[in-house]
Amino acid sequence: MDSRKLRVAFQGEPGAFSEAAAVQLLGEDILTVPRPTFDALFAAITDGAADALLVPVENSLAGSVVRVYDLLLESDLTITAETILPIEMNLIAMPGTSLSDIHVVSSHPMALAQCEKFFAAHPRFKRTPAEDTAGSVREMMARADKSCAAIAARRAATHYHAAILAERIQDNAENFTRFVLLRTPADAAKAPASSKARKMSIALSLAHRPGALLAALEPFARHGANLQKIESRPIHGSPWEYQFFLDIETDSAERLESALAEVRKATSALRVLGLYPAAARAAAR
Amino acid sequence: MDSRKLRVAFQGEPGAFSEAAAVQLLGEDILTVPRPTFDALFAAITDGAADALLVPVENSLAGSVVRVYDLLLESDLTITAETILPIEMNLIAMPGTSLSDIHVVSSHPMALAQCEKFFAAHPRFKRTPAEDTAGSVREMMARADKSCAAIAARRAATHYHAAILAERIQDNAENFTRFVLLRTPADAAKAPASSKARKMSIALSLAHRPGALLAALEPFARHGANLQKIESRPIHGSPWEYQFFLDIETDSAERLESALAEVRKATSALRVLGLYPAAARAAAR
Repeated sequence: MDSRKLRVAFQGEPGAFSEAAAVQLLGEDILTVPRPTFDALFAAITDGAADALLVPVENSLAGSVVRVYDLLLESDLTITAETILPIEMNLIAMPGTSLSDIHVVSSHPMALAQCEKFFAAHPRFKRTPAEDTAGSVREMMARADKSCAAIAARRAATHYHAAILAERIQDNAENFTRFVLLRTPADAAKAPASSKARKMSIALSLAHRPGALLAALEPFARHGANLQKIESRPIHGSPWEYQFFLDIETDSAERLESALAEVRKATSALRVLGLYPAAARAAAR
Repeated sequence: MDSRKLRVAFQGEPGAFSEAAAVQLLGEDILTVPRPTFDALFAAITDGAADALLVPVENSLAGSVVRVYDLLLESDLTITAETILPIEMNLIAMPGTSLSDIHVVSSHPMALAQCEKFFAAHPRFKRTPAEDTAGSVREMMARADKSCAAIAARRAATHYHAAILAERIQDNAENFTRFVLLRTPADAAKAPASSKARKMSIALSLAHRPGALLAALEPFARHGANLQKIESRPIHGSPWEYQFFLDIETDSAERLESALAEVRKATSALRVLGLYPAAARAAAR
């Protein structure tokens, strides 16, 4: 087991932004395992296909990935690390192609929508939606169609030996996705506890009455822990109860534990999703 | 002006879920104005093309529509009403077509992804991504292709005189989108203040230090106002300040105003996005 590479599953096709995030966090010396959907991804450890999952949790333009939070709550997995990837879109085509050869540009509609300025500057490009960014590169290369380009991560161009005709064509330079690494509780316990692990993700549910959230947040403030993220979600089938997702950061993991013990008393349910080192936010190049 | 129908702009093509939400809220006696993107939508009132905007703010499966919140903050528009639409996916084809004729099913990738169980039950259907749900119905009808179906709202079938082959084919019955109606401050002031207007949406920004959010929430709790939604977002270019979006509901609009006056003192910036009657949550049929 120790001599084997860590198998890290991600949602998407080879060359996806999620695969790039796995390599950014763990280096190239891992085995990446593509899975078509988030549901299939979350089954990958149980199926024996992977040792860890690398999942997107929020994007600076699109917000939280709600489905991932749902599946994380249904699982017993724990967050052991995070990484923040700049999302850079590239126009990718067959090697030997030039911009003037291109008539059709294919990608996931969200990627197409994030490159409005590029399409406004090239009005003759016909936009064609695809189910996946990296998949649009695969299809373009399989057809060997020199009139066609795709929009995807740099990693997709490398994976399919395609050429980048234009880089960083997204409208907004401030486009980041935050990913977390998920391990089983047993595997997480084996890893040495890092003294840098001072960020904690928590899910808690509260009765839907004035002051309930206030009582749950007060111990964190008193123990000097900083709220990095808070998000409420209605609980399916429980109209009077709310689920909250919090990210808390502190200078002292000990004080965080003291706060947590008090918070537990103020909530109807609380689960620590993980304690891990906070990622430095990468600058957009 | 009074004799003219209210012109309500929405993002998408005729027959979109957003258009169905506008009609659910305001009735059929309005003029709906389609706009291709959220950016074009938010320009519709200034351009003189619309009197109001109907925009999605959150979906029970996909979370908040972050781009809409960004554009709302950049505008001076105000929320005057909300409505909650059950998102029901339908398989739509040419009239006279039966299920056995269909080989290709086209829609926006998010709609395709919300019908995984349907595709699992019909493995011979080839999924084809499109840029828009209602647009996939328009394209199918324009091609007059009896081997092709689209997935979209019931309203899209009606608009293009297409047939519904299978209804409510989405995986999750608990699929709702919350929409709000946006007016100019001048138009909002003209409307009679409803005594039922007891829900308030607020954007506030806070210094990134322990306890800042707690101080801002405390007056709401003390005045008996209930937190319906809370969401934090980093502020672009201000790494140490956070933006919060809150929905607050109360039995008394007066007590809400008292709380608000206190909350203003605890925040570095606060904007009331609207005070409006809370929508009854529609039951999935």
